[in-house]
Amino acid sequence: MEITFELGYALDTFYFLICGALVMWMAAGFAMLEAGLVRAKNTTEILTKNISLFAIACTMYMVCGYGIMYGGDDFSWFLSGIMGDGATDVEGDAATYAPSADFFFQVVFVATAMSIVSGAVAERMKLWAFLTFSVVMTGFIYPMEGAWTWGGESVFGLYSLGDNGFSDFAGSGIVHMAGAAAALAGVLILGPRKGKYTVDGKINAIPGANLPLATLGTFILWMGWFGFNGGSVLATATVESANSVAVVFMNTNAAAAGGTIGALLLARVMFGKADLTMALNGALAGLVAITAEPSTPTPLMATIFGAIGGLLVVFSIVTLDKMKIDDPVGAISVHGVVGLLGLVLVPLTNDGASLGGQLLGALTIFIWVFVTSLIAWLIIKAVMGIRVSPEEEFDGVDASECGLEAYPDFVGSRK
Amino acid sequence: MEITFELGYALDTFYFLICGALVMWMAAGFAMLEAGLVRAKNTTEILTKNISLFAIACTMYMVCGYGIMYGGDDFSWFLSGIMGDGATDVEGDAATYAPSADFFFQVVFVATAMSIVSGAVAERMKLWAFLTFSVVMTGFIYPMEGAWTWGGESVFGLYSLGDNGFSDFAGSGIVHMAGAAAALAGVLILGPRKGKYTVDGKINAIPGANLPLATLGTFILWMGWFGFNGGSVLATATVESANSVAVVFMNTNAAAAGGTIGALLLARVMFGKADLTMALNGALAGLVAITAEPSTPTPLMATIFGAIGGLLVVFSIVTLDKMKIDDPVGAISVHGVVGLLGLVLVPLTNDGASLGGQLLGALTIFIWVFVTSLIAWLIIKAVMGIRVSPEEEFDGVDASECGLEAYPDFVGSRK
Amino acid sequence: MEITFELGYALDTFYFLICGALVMWMAAGFAMLEAGLVRAKNTTEILTKNISLFAIACTMYMVCGYGIMYGGDDFSWFLSGIMGDGATDVEGDAATYAPSADFFFQVVFVATAMSIVSGAVAERMKLWAFLTFSVVMTGFIYPMEGAWTWGGESVFGLYSLGDNGFSDFAGSGIVHMAGAAAALAGVLILGPRKGKYTVDGKINAIPGANLPLATLGTFILWMGWFGFNGGSVLATATVESANSVAVVFMNTNAAAAGGTIGALLLARVMFGKADLTMALNGALAGLVAITAEPSTPTPLMATIFGAIGGLLVVFSIVTLDKMKIDDPVGAISVHGVVGLLGLVLVPLTNDGASLGGQLLGALTIFIWVFVTSLIAWLIIKAVMGIRVSPEEEFDGVDASECGLEAYPDFVGSRK
Repeated sequence: MEITFELGYALDTFYFLICGALVMWMAAGFAMLEAGLVRAKNTTEILTKNISLFAIACTMYMVCGYGIMYGGDDFSWFLSGIMGDGATDVEGDAATYAPSADFFFQVVFVATAMSIVSGAVAERMKLWAFLTFSVVMTGFIYPMEGAWTWGGESVFGLYSLGDNGFSDFAGSGIVHMAGAAAALAGVLILGPRKGKYTVDGKINAIPGANLPLATLGTFILWMGWFGFNGGSVLATATVESANSVAVVFMNTNAAAAGGTIGALLLARVMFGKADLTMALNGALAGLVAITAEPSTPTPLMATIFGAIGGLLVVFSIVTLDKMKIDDPVGAISVHGVVGLLGLVLVPLTNDGASLGGQLLGALTIFIWVFVTSLIAWLIIKAVMGIRVSPEEEFDGVDASECGLEAYPDFVGSRK
Repeated sequence: MEITFELGYALDTFYFLICGALVMWMAAGFAMLEAGLVRAKNTTEILTKNISLFAIACTMYMVCGYGIMYGGDDFSWFLSGIMGDGATDVEGDAATYAPSADFFFQVVFVATAMSIVSGAVAERMKLWAFLTFSVVMTGFIYPMEGAWTWGGESVFGLYSLGDNGFSDFAGSGIVHMAGAAAALAGVLILGPRKGKYTVDGKINAIPGANLPLATLGTFILWMGWFGFNGGSVLATATVESANSVAVVFMNTNAAAAGGTIGALLLARVMFGKADLTMALNGALAGLVAITAEPSTPTPLMATIFGAIGGLLVVFSIVTLDKMKIDDPVGAISVHGVVGLLGLVLVPLTNDGASLGGQLLGALTIFIWVFVTSLIAWLIIKAVMGIRVSPEEEFDGVDASECGLEAYPDFVGSRK
Repeated sequence: MEITFELGYALDTFYFLICGALVMWMAAGFAMLEAGLVRAKNTTEILTKNISLFAIACTMYMVCGYGIMYGGDDFSWFLSGIMGDGATDVEGDAATYAPSADFFFQVVFVATAMSIVSGAVAERMKLWAFLTFSVVMTGFIYPMEGAWTWGGESVFGLYSLGDNGFSDFAGSGIVHMAGAAAALAGVLILGPRKGKYTVDGKINAIPGANLPLATLGTFILWMGWFGFNGGSVLATATVESANSVAVVFMNTNAAAAGGTIGALLLARVMFGKADLTMALNGALAGLVAITAEPSTPTPLMATIFGAIGGLLVVFSIVTLDKMKIDDPVGAISVHGVVGLLGLVLVPLTNDGASLGGQLLGALTIFIWVFVTSLIAWLIIKAVMGIRVSPEEEFDGVDASECGLEAYPDFVGSRK
């Protein structure tokens, strides 16, 4: 082989692996964010959920998810993770980077989608019901919509949304809105936490127990997002692709900054304070908003897109609360509502996408994920139950589900 | 284009992006370090400051900072982040790496300078006064001194310190001492925290609320510093530059190790205990000390330079306290005093620098940043006030500025 | 020089540096894991130990450890870290990557071995006794066994285990089991914590104070392990080596996932709950199990190997407790017992290793490290004492050793 081909192959492979490691790191970000935003008595359980869902996602995607999303029609990929010996890619073409690196990058994406769900259903869902759902979500629901969008020649790619003017660079819709749709289905079945909404129509704030953790989680996600978006260029070993990866890093950062500022200022106007949790959600909203197309805007536009996301997420969190849709960490707003925004913004800077195509794609993803998730949650509810008892919820799910307090050395100030 | 040129371009670009991501990660390090070293009642506010200043820094540097520091005389860079379409660099030369990658790397540097300020003024400054200052610092004060040192052909590069034997590889002076100078100006105007120095001359220690967070922050900074110093080689795609980057990584690590050991041992001698906060500040001091020249010392010299930094920071923290300059996290000592040390050490291993040039550069940077910051702080003080009321300070700024406790589930043991 | 040679050199160097930075990051992982699993009153001390041991390891390995492990017979490496000016490697060959990058990668490995010890002896050992041991371990004990395994032409490489069918890719035995052997020697001399085992044969659980920290530490280790195993391919700039690195990343992740699931399910069966600490130890066990050979299994096999590790670690932790070997964080089980498992699994997928060779290697490493450590601990015990007084242990070692509480703002609920 030509040594220049080998070097390009090696560089693209290394780039995928480092970007994948950064996306894996986002699992820690979600874990810290959610652990910081729930009450102390529900912390061990959400940590257990986060590390377990990541493990389940990686395993289910290897068993069948990757094959459904990208595999051919001979089903040889089943239980193999990737087909063949790593010298050709899943479609049998001569690869320009290591196939295992592609698998590694994709496997951490599905875990991201699943991580979004865990925060929204926190503090009241049965742990094993959640983990059962994560098997279905990561092994089937996500891979199917993935096959229709990013899937190429997958045997399950019944039709391709891309043919209809749909474009979703790194997954504002395919990953983030999909995760939020699954979460919404779960939240609707589950109902709000006890005490969140009172009979006389009042909404009680239930602040998180550990804001440094939540902030750390946001910074981790911000960092990991460079891999999430940057890796989605799918190549870096030419001038053109290197420029594209660089623009994506720059714009991802700019959008997060814009989202932080947007949410901070709006919360200041609306609530009169510098609301940290809104600023954190603003940063994440900026990241979600740019994810559908981080390669074509200028940095100024990326900042503005991010800021719009930051404004929208504040309105969305307030609105969902008025609708009594109880989402302890704001995941449905951040990933769902702003994920849709991200898709809608794409045609402003990318001629390959149309507003109609984006809406059709968004609708397809949402309906598929929401309906299949609803069915899955309902079956789980019927078979094993989905919500802990009122006593268990009052005492905290850490005691009943995990048998371990998260902070046993500290005197608690609230139940 | 030649494929070997493309590969070199791609590798250098990827290297800049990964180093930049590591420097961005330092923002999380400062946030955790500072959140761990303040009292529980002031934690939400310092977290809010840290994520907000990072967002402001990125945005202001895009709006005008990068242009002031590196832009040409047609001002086309204003509001554009970078000029042009990313195919040429800011000076119009054919680039050897993606211009967006350069912008990304630079934008996270300015945030580092600003992060240094937030810790020193903690627990008593008004949040919005601080954020206002961060607009001025990141959009104007830092870019101006940057233009004189690293700025090349910037229209604001009135004179070049480099012509006078000044050398500051990755910014012991340009970034760290500059941040400390801005912090010192703020601290002098602000005054010490209530109860820190009593009328009978006693100095009260005010220990931080969460030492695991402070330790985490130090480890994050240690890791991110590989990008800070390593990326400052500005290229890696040749044997010579690759060797240089490798030496920089090795020496950065060695200096941090030396600083930790130096501070640990000196604190043992002075205070009779293994003082964790001194060890953490020692690690950071080692990192700051090597930052002005990490590419020429041997690893043994780097360890010793770091150790000198670790010794100096302990003396400096004690001395500043005697002078009643109240810096809750030791930022002025770590970044300012040891930053100066770093500059002074350069001529020992780098013939391109002279002691006179280093002192002239240090003086120029210090005077510029200190005086402009003093003016900015005074204007902010006159217009919107700079210090919270004694009652707000007593109750903690979290309540008055943010309306959110950082740890609402835990019973506090002190006010 | 050929530009293609230069590009390969640069890419391999950058790959080593990034992998090394990830391994350095594991130091933060150990610090957070251990800080989360001890009681609040012993947290400052374990943080101090972790950052100090890392600094000592880096310094001692530079002073003599690297030379013992890889140096030639002229002893010119003593006190130099690396020999020469960085243009040739330690053995004088023309290097294909920067020698400093190799040193950097190796120096963070020795710190990992040492980090394993600190958790096992937590909550009762004198801080300065521990730090004294770390000087011996990182400067002599580890480098000697490293010379026999990975050492190549080291003057101390009296014999080479590799000649006898021993293979340990990234160090299940050489790093992890070695660390555990040193820890075991320390624990046996030290004895269990007061109150852990009662006279009537009861075993008291002593839960950790901060499970979010422990979870964060596990995620950090998981991420850092990509560098630990991925970097151990030792090259990435060809198609073959790039494929190998990619397989290693994929399998490392798969094994951690398998370990998490294995331990989670077994703990559910044995204890009736979703035990977070067991899930965390399961993830780490999966990582240790795959470390001896991550490049040859399929991802499904890697998952299964990891799961076996996850099952084994639960049994091992329970068994060690019955044997009254008190290891507060489970380090001996995770790194020692599962490290041995990792070695034994190698011949299943790697023809270059034999079961006999693996057992001989394991025995050699264990005996060397255990016996020399025992001697070192005994000398330290005789000279300066090894265990804090019962009063100091009751009050927590933070007060006596560090003079700083880790969480001074919170009311504690237990002694």
